[in-house]
Amino acid sequence: MPEHGVIEISQFAAELAAEPMRTAQARPLRIGLAGCGVVGSALVALVAKQAGRLRREHGIAPSFDRVLVRDAAKRRPVDLSRSRVTTGLTDFIGAASEVDVVVEAIGGIEPAASLARAALRGGVPFVTANKALVAAHGQELAALARESGAAFRFEAAVGGGVPIIRTLRDAFGGLTIRRIRGILNGTSNYVLSRMSVDDLPLDAALADARAHGYAEADATRDLDGRDAADKLAILAWLAFGADPARLEVRRQGILPDPARLIRTAAADGLTVRLVAECALGPDTITATVAPAALAPDSELGRTDGAGNRIVIETDEGGIYTLGGPGAGGMATASALLADVLDTVRGCR
Amino acid sequence: MPEHGVIEISQFAAELAAEPMRTAQARPLRIGLAGCGVVGSALVALVAKQAGRLRREHGIAPSFDRVLVRDAAKRRPVDLSRSRVTTGLTDFIGAASEVDVVVEAIGGIEPAASLARAALRGGVPFVTANKALVAAHGQELAALARESGAAFRFEAAVGGGVPIIRTLRDAFGGLTIRRIRGILNGTSNYVLSRMSVDDLPLDAALADARAHGYAEADATRDLDGRDAADKLAILAWLAFGADPARLEVRRQGILPDPARLIRTAAADGLTVRLVAECALGPDTITATVAPAALAPDSELGRTDGAGNRIVIETDEGGIYTLGGPGAGGMATASALLADVLDTVRGCR
Repeated sequence: MPEHGVIEISQFAAELAAEPMRTAQARPLRIGLAGCGVVGSALVALVAKQAGRLRREHGIAPSFDRVLVRDAAKRRPVDLSRSRVTTGLTDFIGAASEVDVVVEAIGGIEPAASLARAALRGGVPFVTANKALVAAHGQELAALARESGAAFRFEAAVGGGVPIIRTLRDAFGGLTIRRIRGILNGTSNYVLSRMSVDDLPLDAALADARAHGYAEADATRDLDGRDAADKLAILAWLAFGADPARLEVRRQGILPDPARLIRTAAADGLTVRLVAECALGPDTITATVAPAALAPDSELGRTDGAGNRIVIETDEGGIYTLGGPGAGGMATASALLADVLDTVRGCR
Repeated sequence: MPEHGVIEISQFAAELAAEPMRTAQARPLRIGLAGCGVVGSALVALVAKQAGRLRREHGIAPSFDRVLVRDAAKRRPVDLSRSRVTTGLTDFIGAASEVDVVVEAIGGIEPAASLARAALRGGVPFVTANKALVAAHGQELAALARESGAAFRFEAAVGGGVPIIRTLRDAFGGLTIRRIRGILNGTSNYVLSRMSVDDLPLDAALADARAHGYAEADATRDLDGRDAADKLAILAWLAFGADPARLEVRRQGILPDPARLIRTAAADGLTVRLVAECALGPDTITATVAPAALAPDSELGRTDGAGNRIVIETDEGGIYTLGGPGAGGMATASALLADVLDTVRGCR
């Protein structure tokens, strides 16, 4: 055991400053941000808050040089006065070559797909929070990234802040993943939790989710399971190599109203969660999203509010679980920033 | 939502084969393995089992060119017939420059530290499962690695197979970590679980842990909390930047006998776990390893057997949990292999 001594923050801050890597002149990092809604704004706020640390620990000085928005006049909680704000996709794409990384937080297939192709073809790293895009075009974009050598990263597309993508990609070297089960949609989980615990009707629980920033104006894809299905297809791609665009996901959401499910489960002392599961079978990959009645103390049953939790079963190395905030701007923004920092580290 | 169709394994195997990266001629990867006990042997077995996948998905053909052992005559569960097996440290260190990566699974400070310095000074990536080494010399070795440009990785040193090191290093870009709490020693957790659940005395529970490969012949460092303290110091280093060799860890293990603790806790419906905790205070970093009485359904209280679980509290992004097998050769070997694959990807 080494000799120990109390460390004063002031002292270790000085030690940090003394480390060569950290005193190196900060390198400008020009970010092109597509979409400045809840997630995009949270990323701008997070980068502003942590500017000192990003300079000190990562040697970078990020700036949002280009920002693509739908409505330039809209008032936002963040300062974009030093950014070139545009509503024109071609204008933004034209500028893609003038940034060091493009971060996409628009959502939906188009114009996100065109933007991703333009960035990657131009050799510009592309970081996205867009599960629909990755589920529909992930393999095509990964191929483009390989050809151009530009990074294509999508940690924020699954699990909110939970680092499930990098874990599946990097952490299980050598292990055979057999099955993945998880709560992948924070909105529906928040709704189910509120309905169960506080006996709220669906519409009231959903209004409450919106009030907390856990649900968009239109939460249909969250509640009917399509959002979770997209995320599940992405996990199956990473775990099993299956093209997410062609994976058949059997899907049942919690619409029209999970109240009866919740009551029936409660009668047996169980709680309802929307569970996504994919497994490597003898000759196919099975993938399902459906409500399940679970023991309240099980890994998934005890996942409350907007939380996400993923359980990964391996043949050789046992069972792993990851959990954390699955919705909310800041959690997703931190996943985007982690991917941006990966592009700076230049991992292949 | 993209159109979906069932994917036959045979078909997606063909798709994998069609991907350029994966058909590229596999590159030989010469591993120098120091230590071929439980963990080292598991790594050799894992690499042999997954040779096809490592070739196909990572484009590498690993071989254990050099293996350092204490007793060359000892019979082992793995085939080292194609390896140059040596008992001489200088012989092995001399050969370090002839391998692409050195993997250390000896444990203890020396000769591991000399080996680490020799490899890193020579520009050879160094991957270790040795928490005592990283706790005592982590900052020095990290500095050597920065100077030489060779990777220094130690995922297997903390959490067994749980990817806590890469998660703290890569996944929380921008988030301020406030507190980390965890069960970091699988041996003591297995012993406490068996004693609680099956009402076993300490010696019987420990013998059972050994029988399952969850405890070494001498489990003193596991039971007195030094093993957990070393791991905690490493987590505090990554989370807060504090030199692990100088961090003061207040430490109380479960020796001489946790039976009374377990009985007292059980009387209140609680369960005993050896909890490691570090937190960023207003002007110091506090770090403690001590037995705690926990609710059986809490994140840590429900962690049974040789499992590890770590709870990370952030200022901006909420609370994250990681759990999985914390002891056992294969879990640790998978973490070593993940680090070896990182060195192949060449992340900075």
